[in-house]
Amino acid sequence: MAILNDITVLRLGHRIDRDKRITSHLGLTARAFGASSIVLSGDKDPSAFETWQSVTNRFGGNFKWRYEDRPIHWLRKISKNNEVIIVHLTMYGNNWRDSKKEIEHNKPLVVVVGGTKVPAEVFEISDFNISVGNQPHSEVAALAVYLENIIGPIDENDHFTGGELTIIPSKNQKIVKNFDD
Amino acid sequence: MAILNDITVLRLGHRIDRDKRITSHLGLTARAFGASSIVLSGDKDPSAFETWQSVTNRFGGNFKWRYEDRPIHWLRKISKNNEVIIVHLTMYGNNWRDSKKEIEHNKPLVVVVGGTKVPAEVFEISDFNISVGNQPHSEVAALAVYLENIIGPIDENDHFTGGELTIIPSKNQKIVKNFDD
Repeated sequence: MAILNDITVLRLGHRIDRDKRITSHLGLTARAFGASSIVLSGDKDPSAFETWQSVTNRFGGNFKWRYEDRPIHWLRKISKNNEVIIVHLTMYGNNWRDSKKEIEHNKPLVVVVGGTKVPAEVFEISDFNISVGNQPHSEVAALAVYLENIIGPIDENDHFTGGELTIIPSKNQKIVKNFDD
Repeated sequence: MAILNDITVLRLGHRIDRDKRITSHLGLTARAFGASSIVLSGDKDPSAFETWQSVTNRFGGNFKWRYEDRPIHWLRKISKNNEVIIVHLTMYGNNWRDSKKEIEHNKPLVVVVGGTKVPAEVFEISDFNISVGNQPHSEVAALAVYLENIIGPIDENDHFTGGELTIIPSKNQKIVKNFDD
């Protein structure tokens, strides 16, 4: 399946002391479900970049990442240029199922996922504030379900090329194929 | 929509120093997507229980949790009794989309999610080893997508009763209804 459009995830308000693994999982989830890149904001944390680099080296693909120290400014700028659609995932938003028909997927998408305190401006700047359920759970869960729903099945062998190894799906064991073998 | 059957999540190998927030998110994801309970194994960590208690108090519902110090023993026992279907989510498993038709949902389901090192026995005991993609990402993401797929939409007002507050979905702001108001 072709990926309909280019999807970037913006991770707001990363905290180096509390969010290390959540942010790491968020980037891996973005990559695995077919987003093309993640933008990290909040604390500048090389450990997330190291994880994404390591996984991309080993498992392939063209996933990218960068740090942004002024995420709201950046969102305003890309919003004004009107070249992207900004979707903010928040438990306060409208249901993702109802919203699906509304969102035209004819432009690159920026999917914003918050930390604890998302500034009110983000609700204003975003074209859509979308909830994956109105219960508190996890930005990783919300991102996964949302991306899976808008992107759908990925041909992993086609999408994640150039790595060192690949998993062969199995009914009952771990099978890893190493391309150097 | 009615929840087809009773779903329990088993979290293997929790590590108090590294997995605190991932495990916390895992339980919240289980709850939000309609599982009835989570069983924690590995390190005994009251902080996860506190988070689940606090969210359940505030947002309602009947989600349950407990600690299990012999998870493999417990899995063997419930497997032998043949009263449940055990689904192990692992990046090494067969694709969840292909597996969906195979799994009969006529018994309670136990969904096993691993930490870093899952014992080989878990692959043997489980009725199904299922991957939500064969890329490394997150047990939170895998659980969310899997539960969302097998349970489908939940009527949150019906499912999460007895709490102190509820979120009113909104296009562009945070609206919280407090039942004491």
